[in-house]
Amino acid sequence: MIKIAIVGFGTVGQGFAELLIRKRKEIEKAVGKFKITAIADSKSSISGEFSPSDALKMKRETGRLRDDVSATEIVRNAEYDVLIEASVTKIGGGDGVEYIRQALKRGKHVITSNKGPIVADFDGLMKLAEKNGVKLMYEATVGGAMPVIKLARKYLALCEIESVKGIFNGTCNYILSRMEEEKLPYEQVLKEAQELGYAEADPTYDVEGIDAAMKLVIIANTIGVRARYEDVEVTGITQITPEAFQVAAEKGYTIRLIAEVSKEKLRVSPRLVPKYHPLSIRGTMNAAMFKTDTAGNIFVVGRGAGKEETASAMLSDFYEIYAGSR
Amino acid sequence: MIKIAIVGFGTVGQGFAELLIRKRKEIEKAVGKFKITAIADSKSSISGEFSPSDALKMKRETGRLRDDVSATEIVRNAEYDVLIEASVTKIGGGDGVEYIRQALKRGKHVITSNKGPIVADFDGLMKLAEKNGVKLMYEATVGGAMPVIKLARKYLALCEIESVKGIFNGTCNYILSRMEEEKLPYEQVLKEAQELGYAEADPTYDVEGIDAAMKLVIIANTIGVRARYEDVEVTGITQITPEAFQVAAEKGYTIRLIAEVSKEKLRVSPRLVPKYHPLSIRGTMNAAMFKTDTAGNIFVVGRGAGKEETASAMLSDFYEIYAGSR
Repeated sequence: MIKIAIVGFGTVGQGFAELLIRKRKEIEKAVGKFKITAIADSKSSISGEFSPSDALKMKRETGRLRDDVSATEIVRNAEYDVLIEASVTKIGGGDGVEYIRQALKRGKHVITSNKGPIVADFDGLMKLAEKNGVKLMYEATVGGAMPVIKLARKYLALCEIESVKGIFNGTCNYILSRMEEEKLPYEQVLKEAQELGYAEADPTYDVEGIDAAMKLVIIANTIGVRARYEDVEVTGITQITPEAFQVAAEKGYTIRLIAEVSKEKLRVSPRLVPKYHPLSIRGTMNAAMFKTDTAGNIFVVGRGAGKEETASAMLSDFYEIYAGSR
Repeated sequence: MIKIAIVGFGTVGQGFAELLIRKRKEIEKAVGKFKITAIADSKSSISGEFSPSDALKMKRETGRLRDDVSATEIVRNAEYDVLIEASVTKIGGGDGVEYIRQALKRGKHVITSNKGPIVADFDGLMKLAEKNGVKLMYEATVGGAMPVIKLARKYLALCEIESVKGIFNGTCNYILSRMEEEKLPYEQVLKEAQELGYAEADPTYDVEGIDAAMKLVIIANTIGVRARYEDVEVTGITQITPEAFQVAAEKGYTIRLIAEVSKEKLRVSPRLVPKYHPLSIRGTMNAAMFKTDTAGNIFVVGRGAGKEETASAMLSDFYEIYAGSR
């Protein structure tokens, strides 16, 4: 019986719990029986014997869970084999760092969707996992359900990855592709994106390239390029004009916010992309291109965000931990 | 010490041996020591103590290997843990079917690049592998170094894959994208492709959709849709005219040879693709789109053929067998 604790019970945590409930049959066929033994959000929790469906219902209706026991206590004392760490990303790491550390120290696997801790202490957390003989999985931190981390860590494990170039922020890509298609100025498209829910009221985190830069740091460390957030050269998309798109189009190019890592480069910036290149994707999609020595260029494209997509990435980590060797 | 036998020593078999030699350090770091214990082509072989580099040199210079021992004898009697089956694809299966069966019966893992056996007897071979507690891996049969099979079998294992749509023949894609760009008739572009080495003197296998259909059968069985080659509805690209591209372009589309599998459909045919869709790739690239319930649409794009790419796919299978659970 695999015992699962969930910490962070917003969109992602709830999405994962829903997926576990909905796909119980397929999951148990693949990895054996499982049980959710604890759930915590920032203010409340539930543990012991409870129905996950009831917990979801209570959270949705009342905004909290049954007990006053804190997330920290759950992480430290609850009974579980794997911690689903789905707290909100904070630059610098946030509470997630401690949750992950405590779980790893207890010899529990961790699956996180939280970029903060992985950016803040990649090496330290990885070593801690190894020392305790458990796995720290973080596919959901980059590119939603796109298998970026697994490609780098497993499938291309015996390739030399010379560089990774990608589009890792759906908000920026939406804004840029709308500017391209409609020949509209940045401010107008941003407003439209905000109305449609593709951009936050304060869009800084996305449009200034911060989100993409955090993901780039995670990818960099994954492929063996040691990097901290401060090392990334970041330029956002706020200065791009419709005229820039016009000049680019005349030469068969478009403009995309490209994050790139190689041994020499760690950069997020608007770049020219040939019009029919697989990285010239439109809308809220994300894309990544792995340039390798023997596998050529491998691209993945997919939705880079979304409740189900993120939960799905975490579920693929779960599968890898418990059925990976099949 | 992992003992490796290679059967089929043309482009792919040689490519794999070269990769083993070139990447020995990285491979041994990941999976431990290994040794090539036997190599066979259709007429000759070498086994016991030998230098793989010398064997490669002899094959290149004389067209054969040291001994007269047959491939069948090597497969049945040589000492190895994993068989690299790199014979040429034959519709119906060819000798590869027996090589794979014999190896599996002996309790040896098999990694193949040969579509024939996998198309001819997917279920039988998979069951035989399971019965003998070994793995039969076939990533290299589809899409070169693109991780199509691993995506389906591992990463998306807990998703429902509603359909897979893809471009699995680089020759056709080259011809179609040249027809699109240059507004030239089929025959002229085919001739150009033949001169450039992108198409065979007898292009039937590619342009009539046979190659794509074989790959589609492999993907279908991988995602649980039982299919034989005869079940695929196949239309090639020989009837497509520059006018068809023009009509498509006016509506914002292009034309690609799309292979599609779902519960209802098993078809290879020229289809309209929106101009900026990730499947509207150009040149000899391949692409696949997995439509899933929870991970959205996941695309992979890459070079679908090539000596190194194919060898690289086989090496990723090798990694999965021996380091998969790490």
